[in-house]
Order: sequence, then structure tokens, then C-alpha cells
Amino acid sequence: MKRIAIDMDEVIADALAEYLQRYNTDFNAKLTKQDVIGKRIAELAPAEHLTRLRSYFHEESFFRDLEVMEGSQEVIRDLMDRYEVYIVTAAMEVPCSFTAKFQWLERHFPFLPPDNIVFCGNKGIIAADYLIDDNVYQLDRFRGEGILFTTPHNFYESKYNRVDDWQDVRKLFLDSPE
Amino acid sequence: MKRIAIDMDEVIADALAEYLQRYNTDFNAKLTKQDVIGKRIAELAPAEHLTRLRSYFHEESFFRDLEVMEGSQEVIRDLMDRYEVYIVTAAMEVPCSFTAKFQWLERHFPFLPPDNIVFCGNKGIIAADYLIDDNVYQLDRFRGEGILFTTPHNFYESKYNRVDDWQDVRKLFLDSPE
Repeated sequence: MKRIAIDMDEVIADALAEYLQRYNTDFNAKLTKQDVIGKRIAELAPAEHLTRLRSYFHEESFFRDLEVMEGSQEVIRDLMDRYEVYIVTAAMEVPCSFTAKFQWLERHFPFLPPDNIVFCGNKGIIAADYLIDDNVYQLDRFRGEGILFTTPHNFYESKYNRVDDWQDVRKLFLDSPE
Repeated sequence: MKRIAIDMDEVIADALAEYLQRYNTDFNAKLTKQDVIGKRIAELAPAEHLTRLRSYFHEESFFRDLEVMEGSQEVIRDLMDRYEVYIVTAAMEVPCSFTAKFQWLERHFPFLPPDNIVFCGNKGIIAADYLIDDNVYQLDRFRGEGILFTTPHNFYESKYNRVDDWQDVRKLFLDSPE
């Protein structure tokens, strides 16, 4: 059975929506996902907003109530019939997120055994056939086949095979004979 | 550069000493490491102690103040000159341990980058050349070369190459030409 490792933020959990919402609320702004195509929010925000902007990611509450990316639950459940599925998230960058991330997975992906959850830093340590991730720098370190999950900041990347949403993941891994 | 993955409990952190100390305090007992050679404490304790005994591992405080295994800091620092070193612990079994384990590593192994820390369940997901672990079932799932770190419960195992302490690890990985 082949093994697929799947990232959390911006792949199964909509961290960008939360980020934009916090920014818009704090600074009375109206940034949308369209506005950040090919960019990081930090490039669009005035310098005096950056400290606050960077702090969002270091608040435990940030990770508690993220929206689930559309279709990810159904597709992952189906993937589990044909692949070993692991959720692999770079939680070591944000130690305050450990418990919130684990509980979020328990709540939204209760069918996924805790044995198949990995909190790491460098994803080069992951032994899997595929890694679905929105970060090119993690795909670069991974030893298997990297698949880029489209999110605004990676919109113009052309280095990896790309999936735009969970229906694309289904097509790639399930809509073909074994 | 070859990569070594190293377990935490009973390899760099003396979880067994803490376990025995809690048991002895709670039940006015005098169990030592000698007493549990080839056994689990649960096999020696009366049935009415088991619920309490099993609860130790699910208390965050358990992981806060574990003693560092003798020589592990010096040898790991030296290993880092010649190998990529990752600490890989099965923390998903005990979600309450996440923060305590991370802070313990920050305190006792400050020279180890957070990028090289992994909290997982099944260690079959780890891409490394070697795994030093006291658990045969984790070594069985690992794809690289497993090295059994001696601790009382695995005393009679003969399936893996074995190291008895950190000086043995030094001999195996450092006392030979590159």
C-alpha cells in the first residue's frame, strides 16, 4: 500500500481565511484571498502592522477554529481505503499549536488514527511516497514525490505537479485503476 | 550525511525512574530497575494498583522533570558533527505530553534545532538510516536499521543490534573512522 503524507495548514485547514479575517478585523481592512495571489500578506500590509500580523500565528486560539477545506474529509476517508494516509504538520515552528492542532484533527478527522499524525519541523524526515503540501520549501526537502496544493502564495510556482482542490486530489489518486 | 533518529523515553529521558518513583511513593513499595528486568511494572503490581499505575503516563507533570539519561547530551552533541540527528518520540499516545516534552528538550538539549524534533505515533513514517529506540515494536515498523537501547523491559530481546548506554552509542557511531 502506498503512503500519502498530507499537510494541515492551507491544505486541510483554512489557515489563510483565519489570517485574513484577523487582519481585516484588527486594521479595518478588506483583504481577500484574491488580493494575496502570488504574495504573502506581509508584503501588502504597511510596516506598522507587521508585528501584530506576525503574532497571529503564535496564538493558540488561531488553530482552534479553522474551517475545514472543502472536500478534504470525504476525499481523505476514501484515500484511506487505498493508501496509508498520514497528516504531517510543521507544528514545531509554533509549539503553542500542539494541543489545538491535535484536538482539531480529533474533531474534524475522527476516522484518522492518532498513530498517523506527525508534528515535525523539517519534512525531509518523512518516509512516504507522496507529500501534498502548499510549501515548496517543504516539498524540496521531502524524499518522495511532492505535490503542490494550490494556495494564493504559491500561485506562480511551477516546480511541482499541482492540485487545486480536493476534487483534484481525488482525480489524481482515486479516479484511476489501482 | 547519514541520519540518526533517537527516541526520548527510556533513551534520553529516564521515564522508568519516574514511573518507579511514583509507584513506590503511592503504594509504599520499593521496586527498583533490577526488579523489572524482562518485565513491565504492571506484571509485578497487584491488580488493584493498575488503574493508578496506568494513569501516571497520562499526567502532564510526568514528563516535566524527567532525569536526563547519563551521557546522552554529550554524545548527541558529538553525533551532530557527523550525522543529522532527529529526536523522534511517540507523543501521539499521550497528547497531554506535547508541551512538556518540547520544553524538556529545549531545557536539556538546547543545541538541537526544533526543526529536528518529531512527535509521531507509528515510527514507520520516519526516513532515517538508524533509529535508536527501546521499543521493539517501533523498530519493527521502522524502514532503516533499528538499534535497541537497553532498558529493563527489553532485556531479553535478541532481535536487534543493542546498545546498553550512551557510551555504547558513542562507540558504535563515533569511535570508528568516517
